[in-house]
Amino acid sequence: MKEKMKYRLGWTIMALLAVPVMVGPTFAADSQVEETVVQLAYAVDTFYLLMTGALVMWMAAGFSMLESGLVRSKNTVEILTKNVALYAIACIMYMLVGYNIMYGGGPNGFIPGLDFLLGADHTVDEVLKSGGKVYYSSMADFFFQVVFVATAMSIISGAVAERMKLWSFLAFAVVMTAVIYPVQGYWKWGKGFLDAFGFLDFAGSGVVHLCGASAALAGVLLLGPRKGKYVLGKNNAIPGANLPLAALGTLILWLGWFGFNGGSELKISNISEANAVAMVFVNTNTSAAGGLVAALILSRFWFGKADLTMALNGALAGLVAITAEPLTPSPLLATTIGIMAGLLVVAAIVFIDKAKIDDPVGAISVHGVCGIWGLLAVTLSNPKSSLVAQLAGITTIFAWCFGTSFVVWLLIKGIMGIRVGEEEELEGVDVAECGLAAYPEFTKE
Amino acid sequence: MKEKMKYRLGWTIMALLAVPVMVGPTFAADSQVEETVVQLAYAVDTFYLLMTGALVMWMAAGFSMLESGLVRSKNTVEILTKNVALYAIACIMYMLVGYNIMYGGGPNGFIPGLDFLLGADHTVDEVLKSGGKVYYSSMADFFFQVVFVATAMSIISGAVAERMKLWSFLAFAVVMTAVIYPVQGYWKWGKGFLDAFGFLDFAGSGVVHLCGASAALAGVLLLGPRKGKYVLGKNNAIPGANLPLAALGTLILWLGWFGFNGGSELKISNISEANAVAMVFVNTNTSAAGGLVAALILSRFWFGKADLTMALNGALAGLVAITAEPLTPSPLLATTIGIMAGLLVVAAIVFIDKAKIDDPVGAISVHGVCGIWGLLAVTLSNPKSSLVAQLAGITTIFAWCFGTSFVVWLLIKGIMGIRVGEEEELEGVDVAECGLAAYPEFTKE
Amino acid sequence: MKEKMKYRLGWTIMALLAVPVMVGPTFAADSQVEETVVQLAYAVDTFYLLMTGALVMWMAAGFSMLESGLVRSKNTVEILTKNVALYAIACIMYMLVGYNIMYGGGPNGFIPGLDFLLGADHTVDEVLKSGGKVYYSSMADFFFQVVFVATAMSIISGAVAERMKLWSFLAFAVVMTAVIYPVQGYWKWGKGFLDAFGFLDFAGSGVVHLCGASAALAGVLLLGPRKGKYVLGKNNAIPGANLPLAALGTLILWLGWFGFNGGSELKISNISEANAVAMVFVNTNTSAAGGLVAALILSRFWFGKADLTMALNGALAGLVAITAEPLTPSPLLATTIGIMAGLLVVAAIVFIDKAKIDDPVGAISVHGVCGIWGLLAVTLSNPKSSLVAQLAGITTIFAWCFGTSFVVWLLIKGIMGIRVGEEEELEGVDVAECGLAAYPEFTKE
Repeated sequence: MKEKMKYRLGWTIMALLAVPVMVGPTFAADSQVEETVVQLAYAVDTFYLLMTGALVMWMAAGFSMLESGLVRSKNTVEILTKNVALYAIACIMYMLVGYNIMYGGGPNGFIPGLDFLLGADHTVDEVLKSGGKVYYSSMADFFFQVVFVATAMSIISGAVAERMKLWSFLAFAVVMTAVIYPVQGYWKWGKGFLDAFGFLDFAGSGVVHLCGASAALAGVLLLGPRKGKYVLGKNNAIPGANLPLAALGTLILWLGWFGFNGGSELKISNISEANAVAMVFVNTNTSAAGGLVAALILSRFWFGKADLTMALNGALAGLVAITAEPLTPSPLLATTIGIMAGLLVVAAIVFIDKAKIDDPVGAISVHGVCGIWGLLAVTLSNPKSSLVAQLAGITTIFAWCFGTSFVVWLLIKGIMGIRVGEEEELEGVDVAECGLAAYPEFTKE
Repeated sequence: MKEKMKYRLGWTIMALLAVPVMVGPTFAADSQVEETVVQLAYAVDTFYLLMTGALVMWMAAGFSMLESGLVRSKNTVEILTKNVALYAIACIMYMLVGYNIMYGGGPNGFIPGLDFLLGADHTVDEVLKSGGKVYYSSMADFFFQVVFVATAMSIISGAVAERMKLWSFLAFAVVMTAVIYPVQGYWKWGKGFLDAFGFLDFAGSGVVHLCGASAALAGVLLLGPRKGKYVLGKNNAIPGANLPLAALGTLILWLGWFGFNGGSELKISNISEANAVAMVFVNTNTSAAGGLVAALILSRFWFGKADLTMALNGALAGLVAITAEPLTPSPLLATTIGIMAGLLVVAAIVFIDKAKIDDPVGAISVHGVCGIWGLLAVTLSNPKSSLVAQLAGITTIFAWCFGTSFVVWLLIKGIMGIRVGEEEELEGVDVAECGLAAYPEFTKE
Repeated sequence: MKEKMKYRLGWTIMALLAVPVMVGPTFAADSQVEETVVQLAYAVDTFYLLMTGALVMWMAAGFSMLESGLVRSKNTVEILTKNVALYAIACIMYMLVGYNIMYGGGPNGFIPGLDFLLGADHTVDEVLKSGGKVYYSSMADFFFQVVFVATAMSIISGAVAERMKLWSFLAFAVVMTAVIYPVQGYWKWGKGFLDAFGFLDFAGSGVVHLCGASAALAGVLLLGPRKGKYVLGKNNAIPGANLPLAALGTLILWLGWFGFNGGSELKISNISEANAVAMVFVNTNTSAAGGLVAALILSRFWFGKADLTMALNGALAGLVAITAEPLTPSPLLATTIGIMAGLLVVAAIVFIDKAKIDDPVGAISVHGVCGIWGLLAVTLSNPKSSLVAQLAGITTIFAWCFGTSFVVWLLIKGIMGIRVGEEEELEGVDVAECGLAAYPEFTKE
């Protein structure tokens, strides 16, 4: 989502503020209308952030349904619990700590901004005197930012599914959403060194998706594969229990992504910005479409079957890939970026599975591999991009997120363990961790 | 949602209308721009009400999924039928009768407003000459109001699940949405005596949630518990058939609540109002997050397991509690209000179950107990609140809704019965009432 | 959605542009404010199209859930695959070909507009100099249009469910979304001959729903009924596997329809337009409510049971019927139109089943029969309508869509076949086509 507040001078508003000096007698009238218009534009931009933020919040339901559809029924309650709890934890920890790290602006930024926690927002005067620099509610900005953190964390729950302890996962969620995500978010969106270096990441192929996937990879490597996944050199497919939920989850994510990318323009209140937001909607949609079709066709030829789960991952791959730059590509290029992502994700899932890295939902392939592809694809359309800066960003985000996550997972492993007992895993983590069955009447012991 | 139309004078618009007299020669130009701006602001506020109203409509899906996930498979079709039918009935009865009772404004208000039913709305002239008093479409207002009624009624279906006759329930829905809800709604939001007394209820912890829970309690007491729930002094847990649906339903409700609370500000078109709406979004979200985490942790320590259904009810409890006042608390206080609600709801569910009041989904605890908590919590942040007025509101709403509902349930019981036959209950109400099975291939006779 | 761009002169904006000449000295100031206001209005209308378009996209999830809930578990993965793939194909084919056919505007329109595919949109100058004719982003318009195409195609997948080959269906989707739909769309919304003739279809009871249903009917007639559906003169009911999904799908569609109809006004930025959009929301909602209640009651008396699937189809019938004219009816008339649709759809489903036309989800009754009813009902409230024009539109759309679809289905049948083998049908198309089971743990071989 570019910078928190773009400080791009709206020429119209500047002009407005300059004019009254010239016109003399009509000063009072003009300035009143102008003020009303500035206020109304502020309201429109704030409303736009709130509605797109609500769509991003909705992605929490998308991940919940996708992941609960792709695991076995005996592990369904636990992954639902992880998903709803991580969303809540992300909201609280990012409010208390993370937001200040990410957008605190320098050394003082590490002292939590008490006025924010106490509910302060821009005053009318502050907005009117800002010359167009302050154009939406800071509470709306916080709302939009906080739902992004949850997305990054949601990526992880799928990859470590069916074997990680619930409370160890939630402990990691605390650190991830309070510190790991915000620090690298600060480097880019908080105007930190990656931003200064020219690294481009419109809505977070790197800051959100690669970040989440890197943390997931660290967890998966420490956890090891599920029992029965790799036996005697064979890679056993472990089918998900409820594929309509997986399809529903993907479509929820697709819808939510209009908020994720569409809201990251951060402003809609003039012609250029409105056109930009519309462009982002179109490109986001068409990239997902390209990814879905490509993955479906590739799976048909490669595996002989039209694999629904690959098609769904193809759509998600297209969404992740276009996220780094959904504005500058033409719709044709956006479709192509999505097609490439759809092909890539199928190959990545097969490759990662061959490497015996057990990722039950394909999260590392979708969000990591296609996140990197998206960051590189920025150079195809954005004249301000540089391959060097993109590679620097990819390397930095991966190194930070993988490295710190590895250490944190290791600490949690030492303190409370990260993997459920063998018997619990066979029996299913639902009964062991949550004391409930997801579908008590549909499955037999 | 505060008053239907706040009649708060927008200072900017007032100023605008006063100015042309002063400026003389530029009168024509200014008044044209001003008119355009007033029209645009009207459009923005109307659009905002329509989008938030659509989110509240979406809560019908939330209740449907939550309740159908928490009942047994043999009673699933019937509760889905109740949920979709009550929404439709609420829309029709509130249009024909309820809206006029609630917002008719005095004795003439009881004669249905034919112009409304025939599609009348504010004219351009009326808006322009209102001096800012009329600032959104009255049809949009009706849309926003009508989806609230359905919410109140949806609360009831969960509490009386698995044993109440379908058509008796729908008969009650007719009376509830035409009369019971609108009368107490009039007392507060229609500027009736509770409003005059200083009772505060921003978006309906009382008018919607406590109202629905009180009616539900009356029904549950008359119905009695499900067969097999309390046998030989034991409280048997009756697990829900499909927990992913329950989680989905909760997340739908969470999303819809941004409309429920966020739209209840009723205006967004200037800086102060936009800030207010953003504040409401943030507080609604963080209260739900607090409720979820608190309920999850409490259930872990109390029951030894991370109970997903308690976590979900904790989120809903936080949402209900913040609904009475989502604007004046700081985000920190809102989180705390949610945490308290999350703790409270777990205790209430246990207590109500111990009292042998059988509420299959915990609706009375979530919407009743936490609705009361929310109404009391208004006094923590709103300087205009008084504990006496809040207690008066709570007592009045409970007495009216419980009392009239009890009488209506009793009448329905006398006329057509309210409980299905014993054999039908054992067999499941789906086959008896709807002639269909929800999952014919997953369950065996 | 009426015409693509209504070219209706906004009187306010015209006035604004005329005024500066009169006022002399304040020219500069006024024109700056005016420009800002025009830009802001453009942003509001664009935002409105994007949000309503996103709601229409969400209908893809509605059809997916509805259809996957109403088929048997052995055919669930395949229908999900069809639904997500058809959405993606519709987006790509309509972008590459269909949009230009529909809105290309004359003979040159058949040469794909390269500037659109390359991302061109209205410039600031173009908008400011258009005198109010250009008032939203053309990319937003494309986004809104593209999601409509997918709706038309989604209708078909339900009707041909459980027996049509996946890839044959997708091949048809290519032709349908690239050519069949856009051509008749051009005749009405692209200002073609049906539009000139006075045929009225606000949001597509004909252009979208009758079109999809006609193509579906052609496919169903060529396919024949499912094995076991009509045996020895008996019509066997084949119950759906997962009714909560069907209810969820219907509620998703209901929500999405606020975008479908509400966005088709295409403008919201002044009082009259905002009132119109609000009216459309109210009428859309109340027509669905009327349809649901009517179908539920009729099924109760006709079949002796409160049939949930009939109630859901009743709601959809009300939505389809009001789509042709959701603006001019009063809420009372809209409710009545919905009630008629709800009665009609139950009768149509029974009649079509008696005629041994096997439509597993009732799509032809809902979208075809009630689409026609909606087009005729336009004459009840719109003074500009003519029965002759409506009948001409109905006949033309049906003849074109049924005729061309029949030929295309026939060609596909000749080339690759359209029906799965008998053994595959008995075993279920999921394993044969997709190599996956939807619910591997819930059902037994």
